[in-house]
Amino acid sequence: MNSALEKSAADAKSALFTDFYSLTMAYGYWKNKKEERSVFEMFFRRQPFSGGFSIFAGLGTFLERLEAFTFSAEDIRYLRDLRLFEDGFLEYLGQFRFKGSLWTMDEGTVVFPQEPLVRVEGDLIECQLVEGMLLNTVNFQSLIATKTARVWLASDKSSIMEFGLRRAQGPDGAMSASRAAFIGGAAGTSNTLAGKVYGIPVLGTMAHSWIMAHESEEAAFESYAALYPDKTVFLIDTYDSLRSGAPNAIKVGKKLAAAGKKFGVRLDSGDIQYLSTEVRKMLDAAGLKDATITVSNELDETIIKALTESGAPVDTWGVGTRMVTGGEDASFTGVYKIAARRDNNGDFVPVMKFSDNPDKTTTPGVKQVWRLTDMDNMAVADVLGIDGDSFEQGKRLDLWHPSADYRHFYHTIENAEPLLKPRIQNGAKIGTEASLPEIRAHVQAGLERFDSTYKRLLNPHIYKVSITERLRRLKLDLIQQHLG
Amino acid sequence: MNSALEKSAADAKSALFTDFYSLTMAYGYWKNKKEERSVFEMFFRRQPFSGGFSIFAGLGTFLERLEAFTFSAEDIRYLRDLRLFEDGFLEYLGQFRFKGSLWTMDEGTVVFPQEPLVRVEGDLIECQLVEGMLLNTVNFQSLIATKTARVWLASDKSSIMEFGLRRAQGPDGAMSASRAAFIGGAAGTSNTLAGKVYGIPVLGTMAHSWIMAHESEEAAFESYAALYPDKTVFLIDTYDSLRSGAPNAIKVGKKLAAAGKKFGVRLDSGDIQYLSTEVRKMLDAAGLKDATITVSNELDETIIKALTESGAPVDTWGVGTRMVTGGEDASFTGVYKIAARRDNNGDFVPVMKFSDNPDKTTTPGVKQVWRLTDMDNMAVADVLGIDGDSFEQGKRLDLWHPSADYRHFYHTIENAEPLLKPRIQNGAKIGTEASLPEIRAHVQAGLERFDSTYKRLLNPHIYKVSITERLRRLKLDLIQQHLG
Repeated sequence: MNSALEKSAADAKSALFTDFYSLTMAYGYWKNKKEERSVFEMFFRRQPFSGGFSIFAGLGTFLERLEAFTFSAEDIRYLRDLRLFEDGFLEYLGQFRFKGSLWTMDEGTVVFPQEPLVRVEGDLIECQLVEGMLLNTVNFQSLIATKTARVWLASDKSSIMEFGLRRAQGPDGAMSASRAAFIGGAAGTSNTLAGKVYGIPVLGTMAHSWIMAHESEEAAFESYAALYPDKTVFLIDTYDSLRSGAPNAIKVGKKLAAAGKKFGVRLDSGDIQYLSTEVRKMLDAAGLKDATITVSNELDETIIKALTESGAPVDTWGVGTRMVTGGEDASFTGVYKIAARRDNNGDFVPVMKFSDNPDKTTTPGVKQVWRLTDMDNMAVADVLGIDGDSFEQGKRLDLWHPSADYRHFYHTIENAEPLLKPRIQNGAKIGTEASLPEIRAHVQAGLERFDSTYKRLLNPHIYKVSITERLRRLKLDLIQQHLG
Repeated sequence: MNSALEKSAADAKSALFTDFYSLTMAYGYWKNKKEERSVFEMFFRRQPFSGGFSIFAGLGTFLERLEAFTFSAEDIRYLRDLRLFEDGFLEYLGQFRFKGSLWTMDEGTVVFPQEPLVRVEGDLIECQLVEGMLLNTVNFQSLIATKTARVWLASDKSSIMEFGLRRAQGPDGAMSASRAAFIGGAAGTSNTLAGKVYGIPVLGTMAHSWIMAHESEEAAFESYAALYPDKTVFLIDTYDSLRSGAPNAIKVGKKLAAAGKKFGVRLDSGDIQYLSTEVRKMLDAAGLKDATITVSNELDETIIKALTESGAPVDTWGVGTRMVTGGEDASFTGVYKIAARRDNNGDFVPVMKFSDNPDKTTTPGVKQVWRLTDMDNMAVADVLGIDGDSFEQGKRLDLWHPSADYRHFYHTIENAEPLLKPRIQNGAKIGTEASLPEIRAHVQAGLERFDSTYKRLLNPHIYKVSITERLRRLKLDLIQQHLG
């Protein structure tokens, strides 16, 4: 069994991390010499958590993995043993590297359904092989960055600690979640490895077992305070928060305070509003106004919002399971669809998927997304158009609902910022990656540009994502052709 | 950024994959020379999916990771830079290896809340350091194995394909999920890397993009059938399942059938009951009774149950997102608590956590779990007792509810099978690991021993987990001491 871990670690970057149909199709394209360039787009279908916005995350991880996306000799041997592919194709895969081009939004951008977040141009094989890895990486990190941004907003932009390692979905579920939670607004993580790999601040104090391994709660607190006089947070709910934990914390904490040290207490069970209020009173009455209160216990944005609104005196929120798994919504609905293919003349021909489910019908063509903002730099609407379109300032624009054709509105352009930017050109990276603190700052600045109604937890205002008149015509023409 | 991937892959087995509080506490134990042996137990608090059973999974992965659970020189440098720990402790960590002992249930055992699934005995430091990694591994794989077993039962034990890679929670979310889904009853996966690493059958045919990259749907089907005459499954919903997809599949499929080949069709949208019934009629009318129907599209056990009950003619179920993330329940409630510590005489002293939430109060002592079965080998109840207790056949036993002390029942012992078995003794592995097909067979044989009422999707019968009279006395005495 030891080999499975070795293989799994070594193959974290294997191009075998792909849905098998990508390989069966790739073989078909190779065999039939269908090497025409195509354009695929990743977009998502609905906001998670019944929310009003999402955060695009995972780009840095995706770019890293894409650079390393190759088949090892061992991978090729595995594929050969399936006896489905001829040797020439396996040799081709042995040499495979992504040589296509890539446009994406900046990591940390506030995003909406139907918008291309990532656009891939390349031959059919390379476009197809990267599908699973792209979706896997961006779907999960976007889910968690979005969830964390909601938690952070619910806490009135206060201090959020990500405590999710033990209930995250596997080891990388924890690592990717720590990265994405930091992007979404968490101040730190309990995951020490994420601290090392991503440079995120690590935090943590004591478990109930620390208390139970000592002769008494007071002895456990004394011992901890002696070790970490500058970083002590007493866990006070092992026996009884108000009758045992808080009095013992105050007893030991007073000595810390007398030595000029700050400390805190943590509640991990019981009614947080009641207990935090009572503990605050006890701390204040003991002259320990600087002592902080951290709370944890199956928190999410709804519970945190209720607590902040009721005035619970909480300084730091420890949020685990529901933040690192998404809780009630454990997946992000990103999909990857072909949007155009090059014909014999070298021109892109838009293609479109129809479906028995109308909302699975795609919008054809090589697209760009523009964010329209007003004179105060507040976002008004996003618009999808054909890449290369331009918008003149002061011009009145006719904008259409992507599928409900009877709905449209006019808008006079102040600023139109294109959101998709080139990242890779024919296999070569363009520019440098943003750091995690930069991405996190981009999220927070981006959220400022949206009216609070779009950020409401419950029944948020739906932000407009429209298509241009030209894109609408293209779509209607293709539908016409298909029906006719 | 490239370094993050390298580090992350190389460190898949780093002991830094631990909650930071485990390290702050470990330093305290080291510093204060608290090296006494302790016993920790992992158990879970409630069944996921409002179900009646869970499947214990992830043991093989945990044992592998435990063997590799060490701090590299680079890890130690990272910890040194935090300026929190003295050099002697860092040197100690540099030499760290798990030298304790481990008892666990067999991987694939049907399990219930409150039962110790894993029991760790060792010094406080090693018991504490492995907490996060143990919980992370077992919680996630148990969640997915349980979900898959539910899906498999709902399909009348038919053919389940795991298609979750693109929506799984990160790369390992996909890999661990493929492993656990196979254990829980899936017949194969779309994840090619999981096929290689775990030896699971890989499956997959074509995406909508294959159809759209060809001049026509018929040409796309022709081309695919020429490549894979023995493994063709036509995706028929790109344009219109009944008016275009099915007729084209029949046209091309007839040629395959004439050559003695079997084929299938796949539906990925629309009303599955209606479409599968109509497509079945069309295939049968064309004399293609052997052609199979695969369906997919946001399936879970509830939808599959409704479809099987309504007689939808489905041969294979492609299940993705909701199976590999858990869907509505994205985490398994496993926790890890200290149960006993050794006193100065070398005797184990049971310890117990009280809590402001009564259901967070633990059951003290070094425990074993016995499964009581009747003469037909059907499970009657599980019982928690002190390790070393024995049960005489034919003896009447007094069994108690773990927390509601007024509830108890009598049972005359037929068979009492101890479920926790030794796996590691003082750091050395005992025995060999079961293979994935063996674990999967253990799940299916285990489920056979439970009455169908426990396996019902909706409001299942609650299986009895009781404590012995002796364990009950121990618990009541400790509560008495605590209150007194």
